[in-house]
Parts: sequence; structure tokens; C-alpha cells
Amino acid sequence: MKSYNLAILGATGAVGRQMLRCLEERNFPVGEIRLLASAKSAGAKLGFRGAQIEVREADADAFDGLDIVLGAVQAPLALRFAPAIAASGAVFIDNSSAFRLSDGVPLVVPEINPEDAFSHQGVIASPNCSTTIALVAVSAVNRISPIRAMYASTYQAVSGAGAPGVTELEAQTRAAAFGCEIKPEVFRYQIIQNIIPQIGCFEGEGYTSEEMKMQRESRKIAHLPELLVNCTCVRVPVLRSHSISMTVVTENPVSPSEAREAIANAPGCALADDPANYVYPMPLPASDQDLVYVGRIRRDLANPNGLALWCSGDQLRKGAATNTVQIAELLIAG
Amino acid sequence: MKSYNLAILGATGAVGRQMLRCLEERNFPVGEIRLLASAKSAGAKLGFRGAQIEVREADADAFDGLDIVLGAVQAPLALRFAPAIAASGAVFIDNSSAFRLSDGVPLVVPEINPEDAFSHQGVIASPNCSTTIALVAVSAVNRISPIRAMYASTYQAVSGAGAPGVTELEAQTRAAAFGCEIKPEVFRYQIIQNIIPQIGCFEGEGYTSEEMKMQRESRKIAHLPELLVNCTCVRVPVLRSHSISMTVVTENPVSPSEAREAIANAPGCALADDPANYVYPMPLPASDQDLVYVGRIRRDLANPNGLALWCSGDQLRKGAATNTVQIAELLIAG
Repeated sequence: MKSYNLAILGATGAVGRQMLRCLEERNFPVGEIRLLASAKSAGAKLGFRGAQIEVREADADAFDGLDIVLGAVQAPLALRFAPAIAASGAVFIDNSSAFRLSDGVPLVVPEINPEDAFSHQGVIASPNCSTTIALVAVSAVNRISPIRAMYASTYQAVSGAGAPGVTELEAQTRAAAFGCEIKPEVFRYQIIQNIIPQIGCFEGEGYTSEEMKMQRESRKIAHLPELLVNCTCVRVPVLRSHSISMTVVTENPVSPSEAREAIANAPGCALADDPANYVYPMPLPASDQDLVYVGRIRRDLANPNGLALWCSGDQLRKGAATNTVQIAELLIAG
Repeated sequence: MKSYNLAILGATGAVGRQMLRCLEERNFPVGEIRLLASAKSAGAKLGFRGAQIEVREADADAFDGLDIVLGAVQAPLALRFAPAIAASGAVFIDNSSAFRLSDGVPLVVPEINPEDAFSHQGVIASPNCSTTIALVAVSAVNRISPIRAMYASTYQAVSGAGAPGVTELEAQTRAAAFGCEIKPEVFRYQIIQNIIPQIGCFEGEGYTSEEMKMQRESRKIAHLPELLVNCTCVRVPVLRSHSISMTVVTENPVSPSEAREAIANAPGCALADDPANYVYPMPLPASDQDLVYVGRIRRDLANPNGLALWCSGDQLRKGAATNTVQIAELLIAG
């Protein structure tokens, strides 16, 4: 079996570490694995298939001989290293927002638009975490009747802000338990016992960058250039897994039972919709696995073509690391 | 100045205690104050205007000589004591759901429909907490152009489940900090570092009782019998104050700046809408005061007649105790 030389760019962050775990769990045919990070993380060691792999500094020469680079860094670093990756001939599967909306860069959720991956010109982008989770949840509905509009209010975990977000909530949990002073550092305001209705930067019109991603990226992934999205992104004191309260308005009405059946059979989805037995998605049970849980499926009382639902998914896995590794799997299978 | 003999039915609960504080803070002209609760709480003492008032058991004779009874018990107990309150001649201002939708019982938010209070036949109801907070936030918009539909996703504090809800989140915070086992008792599932998309019981069509209140009670309070409400109610690990992500669809378009000006001038509202300076409503600063904070006001990207916004308000105060005391103030002024 052919094997591939891979690098993880940003290997020591929350998403990078998860990528390494995904490669191991999914038995990705790895030849060499190169763990790249900033100079300050160089020398650290991360376990992979029983070995301890030393992290090395990401520099222009770091990509020679690679087949695939998985990007787990923020957009500025992805932009900085993209030319060196291109020069090495490796395909760059990037989890940052740097290239998601660029022409010629496929934006791929393998359960939704796998075929797009093959038109890449060296870079493939993995979408925003909330967008991926929302779209996996509703793509089965979109296949029954095209989605015209989407209302989404998110309940996003602190790990969406990376490992420091997790550390901050844990520290504030201890501070709250002991009655100590709580000093926000990663988040602008206290996050324990509070919620913050801002993720990303404010753009024109009062929407944040995170909220606009839901519209812009969904349009590209789902091939729905006219899709209208009204999104509110909110940080909640949850360690892991984002949840989303959604209403989708379809071209023709889709009944809750039709939607339920389609979602139960949709790749990447698990139906968790048995309210009589208190079964609905929640972030805690959705964490540390790859499925998006969908439940609370019911008709929209405000629109005959609307369908309300609720979903939870692990944004470090399906919302980031797993999706990126799945794109790599598509490439090597294709 | 005339004074009034008042009882608080359910005085030792989270809402009852808050009612006592509200009466004190607002200098309500109290003659006698009678604190009524279950036999098990009888004998406890609560402070009021420097005195310690003994709690007595609520029984059929407990209401003699009263002018007003403020109800802070659940619906079954409100139903049980209503005949005795009626027999005593006192007006029953009830915070439970028992009478809210009954004919002849006004359902009142003093900032919205004060005139309704005067048509009472002995009972006046105070609405569901989330409904009150949502309607105070958007009633200024409704005055510009009638609201046709409302999309609401709530982020509700544990104190909505009363004092035991607060105790449970505090206990689970300590358990999480110490790494101890977390045993849910008040809530069906762990609430620390989790969220639960169920408040109330499931009714037909997959909506909960709490979600349907937003439609049924809003219709009655706002005199909008055709109002359509699509609501998702979610419990979050916040001690106090509910937040709501809302979109309202009005008969004619209302611009964000029109809405902002109207909300800034609306009674009971505080505008907190300066995203450039990170100003938006959050539950922590909204707690322990009576205003509903409204922000994140922007156009609905999915509907030209829609307006998106975000609000936070203390559900024990404006969502319950304060609203009930304000209704009493209306009555004695009227």
C-alpha cells in the first residue's frame, strides 16, 4: 500500500494535536510525519503510533519531500507558508480562513461536496467549524429541497479559541469554585457562568466575521450562491463541541418525518431525536467523536417552508481536524 | 399615604425572596407583609425593612384581611390557593402559568400593556420570564411596525429552575474544579460545561411548554393574535439572567437605526449596542437589576422585513418578581 509523507503545520495547537490523533485513529497511510510549529514549540515531542516525534520549526525548507500538508495555524501563518508549500509540490489542506473563499480553492466537507476537492490547484480549504457542523446537519434536507434561507444561533465551546480557551475556562471554573477573583485573558469577558455574543471581529452591518462565514462558506460548499443566512455566534462556557439552534427554509416544504429519515441516513450525522425519552443533542455526549448529532426536528411555526432543528458536534474533530484528514483521504483515494 | 396588606405566596423560593427585596427597594406602601410558604418552611424568618418576619404556612385562612397576594409558587399550588385568595377579597397577582391564558385574566407587562391590568376579575397574571424579557426588548419595534413573526433561541440561566438550580450549578462547579463525579439531580443532565436544549415538557409537534409560552403569551400581551413564534429554549450554565438571540419580522421594514433609537427610549430597556467598543448585552452585567439590555441590533440578512437582535435580562427580577410588583404598583396607582 502506498504511503504518503505528511506534515502538520501548527502541530502543537488544539487542532494540530487532534489532527495527529485522527491520522492515527483512521489508519491514514503515513510514510513520514513531520510536526511543524513555531520556534518556541520546536523540540517538544508528540506521540504517534507508539513513537515520540520531535516538533521542528516551520520554515521555508520544512516542506521538502512532502505529499500533503495539513494546516492547523491561523490565516496569517497559512498565507505566509503557502508559497513554500506550493514550491515543495505538496498539496496544502488548510483549516484556516485564509483561502476558503479564494477562486480556484475548493472548500470541502467530504460528506457534502467531495467532488470539489479534485479541482484543486495545490490548496484545498476546510471550512469554519460551526459552518461544517451546521451544513453536515442540514445537507440531507438540502438534498430533499434546496435551502433558501438559514437562521442560526450558535452555542460555541471555548476550545473554538484553541487550547488557551480551554485553559481559561478550567482556570475560571476553579476560581469560581474557590470564590477567587476571575481575570479574563483569552476572552474579553469572564466566560464561566457567563456567555459572550461575539466571536471574531465585527464587520460592517453589525455581523461578526464568524457569523458571515456561515453565509459565505455555506454558499460555496453547498453550491447555493443565493443562500441567505442570518447568524448569531455566541461563546458559552462549554469545553468542547459547538451546538446550533437552526431553522432552514426550503424551496418546498420538508416535513419533520422526511427530514428525520434523511438525516438518520446522512453520512456524518447521527439522529438524536426522541424527546419523549429526553434524547436530543448536547455538547457533552457529542464530544471526542466525529458525528454531528441532530435532533429537536420540528416544523417552523413561523414559516410553512421552515424546519427547526438543533445540532451538536465536536468542532475540534468534525469541525476541524477530522474534516481536514477526510479531505486528505479523498485525495489519496481519488 | 394609603398602605396595603400584602402576602407573598411562596416567600422562601428564589422568586419569593426576590419579591420581598423588590417591595423593599421600590418602597412599596406595605402595611402588613405576610410571608407564606409550605409547612416545611414555616417558622423561618426573612428580613424586611430591618425586621425579621416569620414565615407561616399557607392555608385556606392565610389570606384574610389582605389587599394583594403576590404568587411565587408553581401552577398547581396557585390553582389550589386561588379560591381562598378570591374568598378573602384580595387581588391575586400570580407569577405562575396557571392563569396566564385564561379568559378574564389579564397577562401584563407594565411597560407594554398596563391598561389590561384594570380589567381583572381578581386575578392578574405575570408572564413567563423569557417571554417578558423578549417582549420588553422588542415592544418598541412593534410600536414602529407590528411584529408578524419572531425567531427566538434562548440561553436560560439555572435560576429559572429556582434556588435548587443555582445550588446545583454551584455544586457542579466545585465538582468540576476538584475533578469529582458530577451527579445531576435538579436538571436531567450535567449542566456545568454542558447545555440542555429542553426547558419544560414536550408538547405535540416537538416544542416544549416553555417554547410555546413564547408564542401564546406574546400574542396575548402584545395584542397580536396572529403572531408566529419559532422558539428554541436552552438551559446554559449561567447562574442568573436569561439571554435571547432574536429575529423579528415586521409588517414594514424597520431599520437598525430606527430600532436602536426606539429601544434606547423604551421603558424597561437599556441599549447596549456598541460593538466597536465590545458593548453588547451579557447575562453577568444584566444580573441583579431590572432593565432588559438590548444590543447586536442589525438587519436580518435573510428577510428584508427582519431585524436581528440580542438581549439579556434578570429573569428573577424583571422576568418574575419585579414585573409582579410593578403590576401591584399599577393597581394601587390606578
